[in-house]
Amino acid sequence: MSFVYGNNLKITVFGQSHSPAIGVSIDGLPAGLPVDFDELSSFLRRRMPGQGAYATKRREPDEAEFLSGLADGVTCGAPLAAIIRNTDARSSDYDNLWDVPRPSHADYTAYVKYGAARDARGGGAFSGRMTAPLCVAGGICLQLLRREGISVAAHISQIGNVCDRPFDPVHAGADDMNVLKEAAFPVLDAEAGKRMLAVIEEARQGGDSIGGVVECIATGVPAGIGNPMFDGMENRLAAILFGIPAVKGVEFGNGFSAAALRGSENNDAFIIHGGAVRTRTNRHGGILGGITSGMPVLFRAAFKPTPSISREQESVSLSRLEEVRLAVTGRHDPCIVPRAVPCVEAAAAVALYDALLEPRGHI
Amino acid sequence: MSFVYGNNLKITVFGQSHSPAIGVSIDGLPAGLPVDFDELSSFLRRRMPGQGAYATKRREPDEAEFLSGLADGVTCGAPLAAIIRNTDARSSDYDNLWDVPRPSHADYTAYVKYGAARDARGGGAFSGRMTAPLCVAGGICLQLLRREGISVAAHISQIGNVCDRPFDPVHAGADDMNVLKEAAFPVLDAEAGKRMLAVIEEARQGGDSIGGVVECIATGVPAGIGNPMFDGMENRLAAILFGIPAVKGVEFGNGFSAAALRGSENNDAFIIHGGAVRTRTNRHGGILGGITSGMPVLFRAAFKPTPSISREQESVSLSRLEEVRLAVTGRHDPCIVPRAVPCVEAAAAVALYDALLEPRGHI
Amino acid sequence: MSFVYGNNLKITVFGQSHSPAIGVSIDGLPAGLPVDFDELSSFLRRRMPGQGAYATKRREPDEAEFLSGLADGVTCGAPLAAIIRNTDARSSDYDNLWDVPRPSHADYTAYVKYGAARDARGGGAFSGRMTAPLCVAGGICLQLLRREGISVAAHISQIGNVCDRPFDPVHAGADDMNVLKEAAFPVLDAEAGKRMLAVIEEARQGGDSIGGVVECIATGVPAGIGNPMFDGMENRLAAILFGIPAVKGVEFGNGFSAAALRGSENNDAFIIHGGAVRTRTNRHGGILGGITSGMPVLFRAAFKPTPSISREQESVSLSRLEEVRLAVTGRHDPCIVPRAVPCVEAAAAVALYDALLEPRGHI
Amino acid sequence: MSFVYGNNLKITVFGQSHSPAIGVSIDGLPAGLPVDFDELSSFLRRRMPGQGAYATKRREPDEAEFLSGLADGVTCGAPLAAIIRNTDARSSDYDNLWDVPRPSHADYTAYVKYGAARDARGGGAFSGRMTAPLCVAGGICLQLLRREGISVAAHISQIGNVCDRPFDPVHAGADDMNVLKEAAFPVLDAEAGKRMLAVIEEARQGGDSIGGVVECIATGVPAGIGNPMFDGMENRLAAILFGIPAVKGVEFGNGFSAAALRGSENNDAFIIHGGAVRTRTNRHGGILGGITSGMPVLFRAAFKPTPSISREQESVSLSRLEEVRLAVTGRHDPCIVPRAVPCVEAAAAVALYDALLEPRGHI
Repeated sequence: MSFVYGNNLKITVFGQSHSPAIGVSIDGLPAGLPVDFDELSSFLRRRMPGQGAYATKRREPDEAEFLSGLADGVTCGAPLAAIIRNTDARSSDYDNLWDVPRPSHADYTAYVKYGAARDARGGGAFSGRMTAPLCVAGGICLQLLRREGISVAAHISQIGNVCDRPFDPVHAGADDMNVLKEAAFPVLDAEAGKRMLAVIEEARQGGDSIGGVVECIATGVPAGIGNPMFDGMENRLAAILFGIPAVKGVEFGNGFSAAALRGSENNDAFIIHGGAVRTRTNRHGGILGGITSGMPVLFRAAFKPTPSISREQESVSLSRLEEVRLAVTGRHDPCIVPRAVPCVEAAAAVALYDALLEPRGHI
Repeated sequence: MSFVYGNNLKITVFGQSHSPAIGVSIDGLPAGLPVDFDELSSFLRRRMPGQGAYATKRREPDEAEFLSGLADGVTCGAPLAAIIRNTDARSSDYDNLWDVPRPSHADYTAYVKYGAARDARGGGAFSGRMTAPLCVAGGICLQLLRREGISVAAHISQIGNVCDRPFDPVHAGADDMNVLKEAAFPVLDAEAGKRMLAVIEEARQGGDSIGGVVECIATGVPAGIGNPMFDGMENRLAAILFGIPAVKGVEFGNGFSAAALRGSENNDAFIIHGGAVRTRTNRHGGILGGITSGMPVLFRAAFKPTPSISREQESVSLSRLEEVRLAVTGRHDPCIVPRAVPCVEAAAAVALYDALLEPRGHI
Repeated sequence: MSFVYGNNLKITVFGQSHSPAIGVSIDGLPAGLPVDFDELSSFLRRRMPGQGAYATKRREPDEAEFLSGLADGVTCGAPLAAIIRNTDARSSDYDNLWDVPRPSHADYTAYVKYGAARDARGGGAFSGRMTAPLCVAGGICLQLLRREGISVAAHISQIGNVCDRPFDPVHAGADDMNVLKEAAFPVLDAEAGKRMLAVIEEARQGGDSIGGVVECIATGVPAGIGNPMFDGMENRLAAILFGIPAVKGVEFGNGFSAAALRGSENNDAFIIHGGAVRTRTNRHGGILGGITSGMPVLFRAAFKPTPSISREQESVSLSRLEEVRLAVTGRHDPCIVPRAVPCVEAAAAVALYDALLEPRGHI
Repeated sequence: MSFVYGNNLKITVFGQSHSPAIGVSIDGLPAGLPVDFDELSSFLRRRMPGQGAYATKRREPDEAEFLSGLADGVTCGAPLAAIIRNTDARSSDYDNLWDVPRPSHADYTAYVKYGAARDARGGGAFSGRMTAPLCVAGGICLQLLRREGISVAAHISQIGNVCDRPFDPVHAGADDMNVLKEAAFPVLDAEAGKRMLAVIEEARQGGDSIGGVVECIATGVPAGIGNPMFDGMENRLAAILFGIPAVKGVEFGNGFSAAALRGSENNDAFIIHGGAVRTRTNRHGGILGGITSGMPVLFRAAFKPTPSISREQESVSLSRLEEVRLAVTGRHDPCIVPRAVPCVEAAAAVALYDALLEPRGHI
C-alpha cells in the first residue's frame, strides 16, 4: 500500500498538504524506549519550512502531538501515533491547479489516478509536507538505532554543479557527523556550502530552482542485517527513499561510477582489523548481496529541481484539453535539498531499524 | 521476505546455484492467458550462460519445466510454478570458498547471516543464477503486458567508458525495440557495441572484469499506474531491480543528472497531442509522484563489475581470522551486463504488471 | 503487524484505552465517495458506551474527527484518517492492575510481551475501546458496499442460553436488516430480546457477566469474491473477527453443526433461479473454496463473557510472584455482546470491501 | 495472496490436484536445522491417501523431492523448496465437472472467479491434495518447534455425533501426544474411535459422507507469543486453518460454549505454580489478547462432510444454465477428518513457528 512501509515495523503515514492534520502510526516498536522529545523536536526542526533564504516561506510550527504508544513518555508496545496540525495552509494559492497541472508535479498523475475528487491543494498527499510524519518515525528510529551503537548522518553532496567533500567511506568520523547535526546548512566543506548557497540564490532570483544530491552514511551497523534478493538492504532503502518526493535516483557505494570500473578497481579486499573481518576500502557501500558487511552503509539520493518555479510554463487545461500558460504562485523552496537531508536520514533510520528487528538468520 | 515480491502478484523464487533445481511460483496471474512457450524459451535464452566470449563457460539448457498453473497451456488461476534443473554445477570449483570469501561477493555476508550452514557453492542463493526464475516470471509478464499494449525493452547503455546511443525518451520506436530483441549483443548503436566488446575482451585478457549500465524503457504504459509515497512505481521498480545481483544504482528519467539542472531545464511541459495530455519532453521518466504519466517509463540500472576475477586478491580465512591470498577459479562472466539485459526487462515487466493489476483509484 | 489489516485496503488502527486519542487510517479507499457523516455517526453510536443497563457506565461522545483523506467531504485518494479523543478515562481505577492481572484479560500476556513498560490502564491497546476506530473504518466500508448493492447486518443470536431467531440464510430480508439497524437491542425476535436482557440483568446483579454469539449476514455479495487457500473469504473474515476482543470462535454457514451431518444433509443443491445459478439451501454460508457463491455470506462469532466482574477473583502479584485476591473495579459491560454487534458488522464490511477491490481473476 | 502465508516465514504453496506436481517454498527458515527426513516422511504418511476403509482409493507415494534450501541435509538460509509429483491422477473421472459443478465443492466458485480457463480436474488448486505441501512445511516446523520445547498434537474429537475424550487443557500429557502420533486412527479413547469408524462405514455404505471436528493442542509454548488486534495468535491460526479445505469453524479454549457461560464460570484464575504464573484452568485456550499465556494452546476446527458423495444430487449445467442431475464418480474419502488431523497439526505448527520468530516486544 502507498502509505505503509516496513516488515517488522509498520510505518503508516497519512494526511495531505492542506488537510486538518498529517500524521504517522508506528506499529512494532519495542516497548521500553524512553523517547527524547527535545531531541526529536530538534530533528524535526531541521526539515521545517521557513528557515532560510532557500526555503519556502510557509511557516508551520510542526509540533508533533503524540496520541498513543507511550506510557509515561516511554514506548509501551501499542502503535505510536503522532499528528501535526496544518495551520498555515493557504489553499487559495492553489485554486487554478484543479484544472491546470503544474509541470513535473504529480498534479496530472493524481488527476488520472484519483479523478476529479483528488485533493489538488498544495499537492495533496504528494506534497513534500508528507515527509514531516516520516521524520517523526525516523527521528524515533534514530534514537533506537543509537542505543544499538548505530549513527546515521547525511549531507548535501551536490547542488547544481557544486560538490561537497564526500564522506570517508571507511572512517567516516563522529566529528563529521556531529558537525552536520548542528549545521544550519549541512555540508562537510563550508566553502562548498557557500558556493551552493550562491547557486540556490541565483536560481531563486531567476524565478527558477535547482537540483542536488544527498549523501548518507550509517556507521556501527553490524554485519548480517538484511536479506538476499528482493528484501536486501538496498531494495529496502530504495523502496523508502523513492517515497521522498523529488528523488529520482539512488545509488550505493560506488554506484553508477562502478559502471566504468574494472573488478580489480571496484572490489574491496577483506582484511583483519582489530580481530574482526573488515574491508580495506568500501566501494560496496556496506552492503553485499543485500546484507550489511559491517562497513558503513553509504548511499546517495538524487533530487530533481523543485518543479514549482515562478517562471511561466506550458501546461494544459484538463477540462478543456487545450494548452495554456501557467505561472505557479504559492510558496516554494528554490532548492528542496537542504530540507531533504533530515528526510533522507529519517528514511534510512526507518529502513535500518526495521531490518535490525528481523529474526536472526540461523539457529 | 527475501524471495517473495509483489502486491497483486506474488512472485516466489527459490533455489541455489548448486541445489538440485531453482524455480519460481507466480501467484495471482489472471486465468485465461495462453502462454507462448516458444517465445518464453527465446526470452530465457537471452540470459543463458555460455553464449559468447564475454559470458561464463557454464552451460545449462535452462529449460523451464512447468509444474502447475496451467490447464491446456493456458493459465488457470492456480499459482504458475516452474523449475529449472541445475545440471552443470561443478561444486568442486568452490571448495575453498567455505573458508575464504571472495571480495565484493556475498560470501562473507552470507556467512555472518546464516552461519556455517550457509551454502557457499557458487554463491548459493546469492548467485546470478537466481535471475533465471525471475526471467521465467518476467517472460510471462511480458506476454501479459503486450496484451495490454505495453512493450518493454532494454539495452546496454554503458560498458566501462563506452556508451550506447540512449533511447529516445519520447518517441522510443518499435524499430529500436525489435532490433534489441533479436540482437546477439543488445545495443542501439552497433559501432558502440563493437567497442564495448573490445573493452570486455580487454578486461577478460587482463584476468579482470568490467561494469556497465542497462537502460530500460516501457512504452504504452497507461497513465495512472502506481501510487504515491512508499508504493510508487519508482519504489517498486527499484525494490525488484536491486534484487538482481550486482545492481548498485537505479535512476529514473534524468536521474542523477537532474541534480545539476534547474527546474526550467528539467521540467516537462504538458501539451495536447492527438487529443490527449502528453509531455513535450520526458525528463521525468514517465513517472510523477510515483504514478505513471502516460509517457514511456524510462530508467537505468548500474551494474558493478563482476567481482569474480582471476587475478589474485586479498581476502581472509574465516576460521583462522587471518589474511590470505585468493585466486578465484570457476567460470565467470568478465562482464555480467549483456546477460543482465533480459533480467532488467523481466524485473520491469513483473513490477509493471503487478502494478497494472492494482484496484482502480476512484469510483 | 498487529494493527494493520487488509490486502487492497490497509486499515491501520492506533491508540490505547487511556491514551490521548485512538484512531484509524484507511489507505486504498477509491476516491470519489461522498461520506455520509450522519450515517457514520449513527453507526458509531450503536457501539457507544453508556447506553443501556447492560453497558459500561463510561461515557464518551465518540465523535470522530477526520484529519485527512477527504476533499469537500468526498474521499480524495489520500489515506482517510480519523481520531477519537479519550475524554472520560479514569486511570486511577486501574492503579492496581500494574501488578495484579485481571483473570482472562490480556493484562498478564501484555506484561510478558511488552514488559514493565506496557500500558496497563484500561487494558491499553487490548481494550474493547479499540473497536471504535475499527467501526469508523467499517462504517465507511458499509457505505461503499451499499453502492455495490451489498448490505451487512448482524444480530445477537445468543446470550447465555437464550437464542434469537436465526437469519434466513437464503432469503434474509431487507425488513429484518432494517429493523436491526434501528433497534436499541438488536434481535430479530423481540421476546427473545427481553429474555436476553433479563439474563444480562441477572448476571449484573450477581456481580457477574455473560457471553453470547453474534450472527452476521451480507446480502448482495457477487459470486467470485475471495481466493482459495490462505486468502479465502473465511480466512480473511476470521483474521479480522478475532481482532475484536473476546471473540473465541468463528463459524460459517452450518459451521460446527456440520460436524454431525452427512454430506447429503449438508450439501447445497445448485439450482437455476431467475436465470442465474443459486443454491437451494445455504449451509455453506455463501463461501465455497474461499470464494463467494453469490448466496448471502453468513457467519457467527462467539464472545466469551466479559472477564471484568466485580466478584472477587484469584490472581497473582507479578512483582512478588504470589497469589492474591482481586476485585475489579472500574466500569464494565456485564455483557459485551450488544455493543459488539456493530463491531462485527464493521469487521465484515472491511473484509468484504477489501476483497471486493481485488483484481479480477481472469482475462 | 492466496497461496502465501506468514509474516516471518513465507510459506508459498503451488500446484493443482492434477498438475504435474504440487509443492511448497518455505522462505525465512533459520539456517542450521538438520531436517530429519524419516520423521518428515512418517508425518506425511499420516495424511496420505489410500490408507483405510474411510479414505479415498487414490494412491500417491507422496514422496517429497527437495529442490533447494539445504546443504548437506541442513537448512542453509535459502528458501526450502520441495515438490511432490502427481502420479495417480485419473483426470477422465472429472470430465463432466467442466460443465456441472459438484454441490458444495468449489467447482462453481472457481468457474466464476477464473472463468472457463480454470482447472476443474479434481478440484484444481482447491483440492484437499494441496494440504500435502502444507504438511511438508508443517512437518519441518514441527521439528523446529520441538527444538524450542514445543509439542503439537491433534485428534479426532468428533465424527457425526460420536465424541472422543477431549485433551486435558491444563495437563495434556506427553503420553496422549505420543499415542496419537502412532495411531492408525488418531483418537484418545479407542472405544470412541471404533464407534466413529462405524459411523464412517455407515455413511460410505449409504453413498454418503460425514463431518467431524479436530481438536489440537500445543504444549510448551512460551508466554508472550503473538500480538494484539489483527495479528493475534487466534487470527493467525484461523487464517491458516481456514486454508484447509472443508474447515467451516474454528474455536479456541471454551469457544462457542463460552457464549452460555458467566464470567465467573469462564475466567481462569491466575496462580503461582513452580515459581511461575499459570492459570488454574485453561478455558482461554492458552491465548489472551492474541498473545500466548504459557498455558497449552488449544483449539478445534470443524470439518463439513466431504461434499463428494456417490448419491445423485441436483446441480446445473453452466453452459446451458439449466438444472441437471449429477452423480459424482471419482475416488473420495467418505470422511476427510482422519486425514485432516496431521494437516491441522501442520497448520498449527506453521502459524506457531512463524509467530515464534517474531522480534521481541520490548527492549
